[in-house]
Amino acid sequence: MLFFRNDYGNGAHPAVMEALCKTNLELTEGYGTDPYCQQATDRIRQLCQCPQAQVHFVAGGTQVNKTAIGAFLRPWEAVIAADTGHIQVHESGAIEHNGHRIFTVSASEGKLQPEQIRQLCSALQQEETSPEPKLVYISNTTELGTVYTKAELTALRAECDKWGLYLYCDGARLGAAMAVSDLDFADYAALCHAFTIGGTKNGLLFGEALVITDPLLMPSFRRCMKQQGAMLAKGRLLGVQYAAVLENDLYRKLAQQGADMAKLLTDGLKALQIPMLIQSPSNQIFPILPNTVIEQLKQSVSFEHWSSVSDTHSCIRFVTAWHTTKEEVEALLSLLGELMR
Amino acid sequence: MLFFRNDYGNGAHPAVMEALCKTNLELTEGYGTDPYCQQATDRIRQLCQCPQAQVHFVAGGTQVNKTAIGAFLRPWEAVIAADTGHIQVHESGAIEHNGHRIFTVSASEGKLQPEQIRQLCSALQQEETSPEPKLVYISNTTELGTVYTKAELTALRAECDKWGLYLYCDGARLGAAMAVSDLDFADYAALCHAFTIGGTKNGLLFGEALVITDPLLMPSFRRCMKQQGAMLAKGRLLGVQYAAVLENDLYRKLAQQGADMAKLLTDGLKALQIPMLIQSPSNQIFPILPNTVIEQLKQSVSFEHWSSVSDTHSCIRFVTAWHTTKEEVEALLSLLGELMR
Amino acid sequence: MLFFRNDYGNGAHPAVMEALCKTNLELTEGYGTDPYCQQATDRIRQLCQCPQAQVHFVAGGTQVNKTAIGAFLRPWEAVIAADTGHIQVHESGAIEHNGHRIFTVSASEGKLQPEQIRQLCSALQQEETSPEPKLVYISNTTELGTVYTKAELTALRAECDKWGLYLYCDGARLGAAMAVSDLDFADYAALCHAFTIGGTKNGLLFGEALVITDPLLMPSFRRCMKQQGAMLAKGRLLGVQYAAVLENDLYRKLAQQGADMAKLLTDGLKALQIPMLIQSPSNQIFPILPNTVIEQLKQSVSFEHWSSVSDTHSCIRFVTAWHTTKEEVEALLSLLGELMR
Amino acid sequence: MLFFRNDYGNGAHPAVMEALCKTNLELTEGYGTDPYCQQATDRIRQLCQCPQAQVHFVAGGTQVNKTAIGAFLRPWEAVIAADTGHIQVHESGAIEHNGHRIFTVSASEGKLQPEQIRQLCSALQQEETSPEPKLVYISNTTELGTVYTKAELTALRAECDKWGLYLYCDGARLGAAMAVSDLDFADYAALCHAFTIGGTKNGLLFGEALVITDPLLMPSFRRCMKQQGAMLAKGRLLGVQYAAVLENDLYRKLAQQGADMAKLLTDGLKALQIPMLIQSPSNQIFPILPNTVIEQLKQSVSFEHWSSVSDTHSCIRFVTAWHTTKEEVEALLSLLGELMR
Repeated sequence: MLFFRNDYGNGAHPAVMEALCKTNLELTEGYGTDPYCQQATDRIRQLCQCPQAQVHFVAGGTQVNKTAIGAFLRPWEAVIAADTGHIQVHESGAIEHNGHRIFTVSASEGKLQPEQIRQLCSALQQEETSPEPKLVYISNTTELGTVYTKAELTALRAECDKWGLYLYCDGARLGAAMAVSDLDFADYAALCHAFTIGGTKNGLLFGEALVITDPLLMPSFRRCMKQQGAMLAKGRLLGVQYAAVLENDLYRKLAQQGADMAKLLTDGLKALQIPMLIQSPSNQIFPILPNTVIEQLKQSVSFEHWSSVSDTHSCIRFVTAWHTTKEEVEALLSLLGELMR
Repeated sequence: MLFFRNDYGNGAHPAVMEALCKTNLELTEGYGTDPYCQQATDRIRQLCQCPQAQVHFVAGGTQVNKTAIGAFLRPWEAVIAADTGHIQVHESGAIEHNGHRIFTVSASEGKLQPEQIRQLCSALQQEETSPEPKLVYISNTTELGTVYTKAELTALRAECDKWGLYLYCDGARLGAAMAVSDLDFADYAALCHAFTIGGTKNGLLFGEALVITDPLLMPSFRRCMKQQGAMLAKGRLLGVQYAAVLENDLYRKLAQQGADMAKLLTDGLKALQIPMLIQSPSNQIFPILPNTVIEQLKQSVSFEHWSSVSDTHSCIRFVTAWHTTKEEVEALLSLLGELMR
Repeated sequence: MLFFRNDYGNGAHPAVMEALCKTNLELTEGYGTDPYCQQATDRIRQLCQCPQAQVHFVAGGTQVNKTAIGAFLRPWEAVIAADTGHIQVHESGAIEHNGHRIFTVSASEGKLQPEQIRQLCSALQQEETSPEPKLVYISNTTELGTVYTKAELTALRAECDKWGLYLYCDGARLGAAMAVSDLDFADYAALCHAFTIGGTKNGLLFGEALVITDPLLMPSFRRCMKQQGAMLAKGRLLGVQYAAVLENDLYRKLAQQGADMAKLLTDGLKALQIPMLIQSPSNQIFPILPNTVIEQLKQSVSFEHWSSVSDTHSCIRFVTAWHTTKEEVEALLSLLGELMR
Repeated sequence: MLFFRNDYGNGAHPAVMEALCKTNLELTEGYGTDPYCQQATDRIRQLCQCPQAQVHFVAGGTQVNKTAIGAFLRPWEAVIAADTGHIQVHESGAIEHNGHRIFTVSASEGKLQPEQIRQLCSALQQEETSPEPKLVYISNTTELGTVYTKAELTALRAECDKWGLYLYCDGARLGAAMAVSDLDFADYAALCHAFTIGGTKNGLLFGEALVITDPLLMPSFRRCMKQQGAMLAKGRLLGVQYAAVLENDLYRKLAQQGADMAKLLTDGLKALQIPMLIQSPSNQIFPILPNTVIEQLKQSVSFEHWSSVSDTHSCIRFVTAWHTTKEEVEALLSLLGELMR
């Protein structure tokens, strides 16, 4: 079975697993106060060129979004997000569970535009019978595989500054974005009030590193983590993994492999004249295929059904990752070539 | 440095780590829908003699308490707990963050008495200006190392039934309790509406297995997990670990080692005529020592300061675990013997 | 100054005020346990032909929506509402503050369609990474003055039943709706799981009566009210007012006066060939006027600006109420006639 | 029937009711933006000698406590209160419903001591697995009728300042406290970060005026009120009442009448050698009586059972108010004299 279902279907990269095994029987303090978390924190601050940043390690994506946004906002404050945003679509109402509305704006390609922020804020921010928009949530890459450029992120931040909004970037696939865009760690640190460096989808067993750059958002964050159930007892597991994946540029290399395989696959799909739901430059790819082909494909490929496009055609999602090989992509393309004939 | 600080200072038992390594590069579905979670679920149902139980795997203890109690209660319902309970003392207000009061009752030895439930409920349950007590939280072992017997747990459940209360047992140290009490998995399943089988403190990298036996508490629980950020993307990591630790009675054996070493240490402390804050039969031990001795002990032993007892003496906590060796206990006792001379 | 700004700009109808004055110095029990609340409850049960209904009196509209929806839903459950709904637009995020998402559907005329419920539920109800739609919120009249008919409400309830949804009707303007539709108290009781009979906008100083017809939604509701700060100490103030306004059909007569004046005004506006944003049959009227006329109108009429329609025209809102007189409507029309010339 | 049950059993003082009647048919803006609220605000600022104070009018006591404390605290912050405090005992968990723990300290006479704050904060404020104490809640008079002096309130504030805590005073019975203590409006404004001036129990139909003196607690408070359902549509009802009761020193005079009648009653009870549960100087009085006497008393007096004291005796509560007459007190004492003979 060829696996193109998602980028969290396997375990950790061998180098990460080795680091876990090597340190397994060491005895350290808990809750992230160990030397490995310190080491990983130092490394992230260095990569971000932001020595004063707070860095927190959290096990999962929903957990980090919920904890961060819950800590940053006052009860009457709300989030602005694309209607495709992870917090809107995939987190079972975690943000609302903390008491905050998400104002969604239509984002056919998953990306939020400064103009949309402007419109929403000019309509609502002075309206006392509305929750007050206070935080812009974006994800990079987006849930549709699209990617913000440095110019776009800069424009978003400028718009946020006009309205006193925090800019928060969910980087569950930050590696995938970095592999195909001009934004580096230091850019995120400079442009976002807080952002995450996703580990789960780029080589770790689990883990999201939250980087908080705005000092106003830092106080008592560890209490919030504990209160939200987001503080791991053996916190060093996160430190060990991040330290391993940030060494020797491994984080980038893993993401690059996913991006390269995505490009190979995308090019192949184009050559087969298969239309796409969206032109994604990153490791999520959305081909539109006849339902009959999809049925046959299921026999030997693991992928996700995305949406129905017509009575006869549907969009499916292929995802590549650090472990995807050229052989697997070629096998998939060859199979598709046969089925489409 | 001798490590008696806690039972979550190291990684996983080698057999558990091996299982993680062996399955590391397999590709499975996420969010706990994989075969390993199914296998571990089956095994737990079998051990609990409760084939209809729901089993959910969650990464941490605060997380599972918060998610379960939050899912079980209505907004106006409250928890009854010992004032030493983990949810009261160590979770930064996680239960209140979900909207629920904890009614605490004084528990000098960490254990809740049926009579305390009776008093509280007869005073409050009909009082509409009070939150309504609805769930009894206990931990076994307790935060003070004490242990409920089968007779005691049975009596608690009977009292709960009189008042329509749920009985929830936090089993972060369930193994430690089982090693020194007459309660087995099936007893917990028969007597509790829900309970956890702690992994973090008994051989796993991380993990708490929540067993729900009351069908009323089951609906939509996975949505709650997701909403609370408690659903791990690579959920199989929990399944793999639980399957490994529940094989060949390993879970019990690890707990037994901790219990045996605790007994060795306790006996040795008694022989040295060192008084205890509390007579704990399990793997947490609370000796009272002169502050001068404590200062010297710090040079070569890692332990936790517990409480000040007088101007000259304090209580400290020693914890044994599956990895504690006879040699380590003897070294600790020998050192203490010297220091106390 | 002619007042067409809203229907809560004055105090109480003289008969209601007289009842308050007459009972003012009586000494009764508090928190709604007095004879007047009982009398009003009995009357409402009788009007609703629903002797088993629970009736609760609450001071305000946001308060009753927040308390009821918060009491009815479990943490993972969500509301479906029109995007014009009061809970979405005018309550500062009160529903989300209780932890629940509002799924909004586009409702150009303020009314929710069964088909919209069907689409949303078929997409989301089994989707465990989404909040679970569980309650349909409608208002009658809607925020745009439109009105559900008995056939429409019946169809909505049928759709709700298909999906296991509660149907909740915000009747802040229930009187206004009853004056121009075929729905009577007993129809609301038969078709809704819960609904409110608004007093604030129809003759009372303040007050919304919540009628709960579904026994599943009744337990512990008074605790919820207290917890939400929605239980008035001198609860009898609500009972006295409702008893007064429900006597001699006064509630209907007041609403009828508002409706009659609205019709007079609407007909007059049509005669002046003034276009409307929406064809509202009830006491909220939305004429579109040149901005220059609006500016002049402000000198002698109190009304609300609704929305900008073009560079030169805007929509404003006129509201009639029980205290609106024929003379006032004629004066307004006459003034408009002059300004539009 | 003699009424000594509570101080909210009747309606409004005639002067207040007259003001409501007089303005009843006026047409004003809603939600507290009317001239009467402005007038009452100005008067309160003047009485408080605090021109920069924010003043908000809210219908009920639980509502104002819930709204204010919910607005002031961050998610991880907690309240310190006496275990007899209204928020702990009479509000059905409203504070926890907003997500905040209440740390209670034992207060046999209802009053919190600076030393108790010190102990709790020194134990908890740096403890990251605990909610962070951030606000001290007191009530004056307390729920047991006791009263803080200026020296005591000053000492509490000094202790709060040491720990960075807000001092919040629930003044549901502020009038009763002012009648028997040396604290005036301006003292509360100088010593508390926020406090309430209770109207419900001192001459109004309903109403609590919240005075916020700390600028940090002011932003977006009206949004919070709306979100909590605490903003009255016809907000002027509160302004009209407060304007009326603050005119000609009426607020003080009403409270003084309650205090005078309480003194008369207390002196009479002492003359009858009836013991008290607590020496209350204010309008709540707690005599201990034989159960047989209590049973007979019920025939002609309305009062509240407070607590069981022994097998044969219980404590009951008498409350005086602005409407209590000398004749009523004498009739009560005379009856008690007979029954105790």
